[in-house]
Amino acid sequence: MSGEMTTSRLEAFSDGVIAIVVTIMVLELHAPSQPTWVALAKVAPQMCSYALSFLVVAIMWVNHHHLIHAVHKVTAGLLWSNLYLLFWMSLVPFVTDYLGKNPHEPLAVALYGLDLTLCSSAFIVLRMVLIRQDRHDPAMAEYHASVQRKNLLSAALYLLSAPLAYFSVYASFFVFVLIPAKYFLPEKRLGGD
Amino acid sequence: MSGEMTTSRLEAFSDGVIAIVVTIMVLELHAPSQPTWVALAKVAPQMCSYALSFLVVAIMWVNHHHLIHAVHKVTAGLLWSNLYLLFWMSLVPFVTDYLGKNPHEPLAVALYGLDLTLCSSAFIVLRMVLIRQDRHDPAMAEYHASVQRKNLLSAALYLLSAPLAYFSVYASFFVFVLIPAKYFLPEKRLGGD
Amino acid sequence: MSGEMTTSRLEAFSDGVIAIVVTIMVLELHAPSQPTWVALAKVAPQMCSYALSFLVVAIMWVNHHHLIHAVHKVTAGLLWSNLYLLFWMSLVPFVTDYLGKNPHEPLAVALYGLDLTLCSSAFIVLRMVLIRQDRHDPAMAEYHASVQRKNLLSAALYLLSAPLAYFSVYASFFVFVLIPAKYFLPEKRLGGD
Amino acid sequence: MSGEMTTSRLEAFSDGVIAIVVTIMVLELHAPSQPTWVALAKVAPQMCSYALSFLVVAIMWVNHHHLIHAVHKVTAGLLWSNLYLLFWMSLVPFVTDYLGKNPHEPLAVALYGLDLTLCSSAFIVLRMVLIRQDRHDPAMAEYHASVQRKNLLSAALYLLSAPLAYFSVYASFFVFVLIPAKYFLPEKRLGGD
Repeated sequence: MSGEMTTSRLEAFSDGVIAIVVTIMVLELHAPSQPTWVALAKVAPQMCSYALSFLVVAIMWVNHHHLIHAVHKVTAGLLWSNLYLLFWMSLVPFVTDYLGKNPHEPLAVALYGLDLTLCSSAFIVLRMVLIRQDRHDPAMAEYHASVQRKNLLSAALYLLSAPLAYFSVYASFFVFVLIPAKYFLPEKRLGGD
Repeated sequence: MSGEMTTSRLEAFSDGVIAIVVTIMVLELHAPSQPTWVALAKVAPQMCSYALSFLVVAIMWVNHHHLIHAVHKVTAGLLWSNLYLLFWMSLVPFVTDYLGKNPHEPLAVALYGLDLTLCSSAFIVLRMVLIRQDRHDPAMAEYHASVQRKNLLSAALYLLSAPLAYFSVYASFFVFVLIPAKYFLPEKRLGGD
Repeated sequence: MSGEMTTSRLEAFSDGVIAIVVTIMVLELHAPSQPTWVALAKVAPQMCSYALSFLVVAIMWVNHHHLIHAVHKVTAGLLWSNLYLLFWMSLVPFVTDYLGKNPHEPLAVALYGLDLTLCSSAFIVLRMVLIRQDRHDPAMAEYHASVQRKNLLSAALYLLSAPLAYFSVYASFFVFVLIPAKYFLPEKRLGGD
Repeated sequence: MSGEMTTSRLEAFSDGVIAIVVTIMVLELHAPSQPTWVALAKVAPQMCSYALSFLVVAIMWVNHHHLIHAVHKVTAGLLWSNLYLLFWMSLVPFVTDYLGKNPHEPLAVALYGLDLTLCSSAFIVLRMVLIRQDRHDPAMAEYHASVQRKNLLSAALYLLSAPLAYFSVYASFFVFVLIPAKYFLPEKRLGGD
């Protein structure tokens, strides 16, 4: 009776939220009032945390697209898992700003890692919905399982980055840069001329 | 002569506004300048009010999707009722911020309840347009009537939460959490594998 | 060779900008830090100017939809006229905020009227493109001419509201409320059950 | 296995980001608290830099549309080049704000020129992807080559504007106005009644 949601609708709404998340982060970059290199250098950590988050959110957008593309049917479970993902993604501007303002503080670094852990957990939950949906299709089941292993690794690394920050924030930064790099490469398979 | 609006156009515009509403609320969450748990704890009420509003707006989005899906024809009445809904939804970031900054103040709690009452009233008006449209279809009429009863209950509870805040803000919070929970469950019927 | 733009693409981009314009205005409504009716009353003028602008922009959105619907071909003239419209619409949040903060100052009222005059001028230019396009279709030409008369009247009234503010801001407010009311009624023809 | 992205999806996401970029810039225009012409005059440089950026981003949007329209297949290279473009475009509000606050400072002018250089470089990279894609189609190859020459010229001029600002900011402003004007004219070919 009540109309079922199509994947394109779900995708359009998610895209809207992700496009806004990625763009409003720039509003936290306040142009320094003094036009000097010194004043500009103070914005550098915020600029770096913005660039990192832009990359992370862009990768999530690409992954989200591939994920939704494999969906047959928008179930309630999928809908709410997707909103769970969007919630944690919507907090990325907050943790990015906090990190940019306190790049050497373990708490800010840990919170950043924690929010990305929660985003990753949402991808795991979403993939679980797909695994259940395709449980009678061996080829797809195999594909989902391989993606899920990558998701679990990312989530584990992000989770590790949080306590790691209390030993060395640079170790956490290494994790933050490593995970996008790891995701970047396999995406190469997507195309080629 | 003047082109009739399709439901997909109405939906696209509404989705745009709702996606922005849900995402800009995070801009009100200002990262504390001091990287301590104490400073972070001060942001906690704002974080909670943000999470609540995210859930409430997400539910409205799902309900709005089902509602628009049942529309045959975009009449002027529907168009303006929809803009009436979007207006009150667009104030959610404002009342959320006010609540987050003054979580123990009856006025802030009552205003939050009032805005959600007005959002609910818009859903009632929109459903009335659908009831009129489907008045010759007994099955749909029955379906609309059952949804409308839920809408009326939500509106009544939200309206109650406003004066309740002057006795106990916690009673109002209970209402704010109860209504999403109530809507959450029936949505389960949407899918299932 | 270079792909021609479809009206749906033009519409999607315009809708995106208009949805953002209408929603970001609420970010200028800063929740008062003190939870008292007195503090809240100070936000009242900003709330009123926000509500007025929401209505004005919503009407522009509806009119824009009807206008684009009548377009056969996206010419360069249409594309740039549309960007000219979006530019002045994008300034609505600025003049709304200025008006909300200085509701009794002729300058703020005049600037608000001026920006709406420029928005109206964009609708006149856009309609001129359509009039040229349909110059061999008598029925459409008649329709365009009747809409254009309404556009010219709105633009003239908005233009009048600017100097009027220096005599009485209330006279300008009357114009600001009158024009939406005038547009609201004919839209009734759009539907009906 | 993993779903290939269609150009319409890429376009929708890009449009979302570009629409937000163009609109949030207006949030940096803070309405002066004093309702005087003198106070308003102080906002004038910011208003001018906003108008310039609106025009620049609008032209990029039109060019981006034509570019994506010529794409046959969304390859990984195209996807990441597009995100590279969106990243530099997302910084336009930041450099615009900085320029608007320091219109006479070489550093702010140079940074503005630099960001537009990087945006132009993204268009060059995107066009290179298209040139490779259409390398067996002489007519398209010719077309791409002619667009690429224009892109290279724009990038070179923007790059020149950065050091130029240390001699005269007005020379850089001349470049900033010249390039949109240059792009504006050829677009005329797009339509005509």
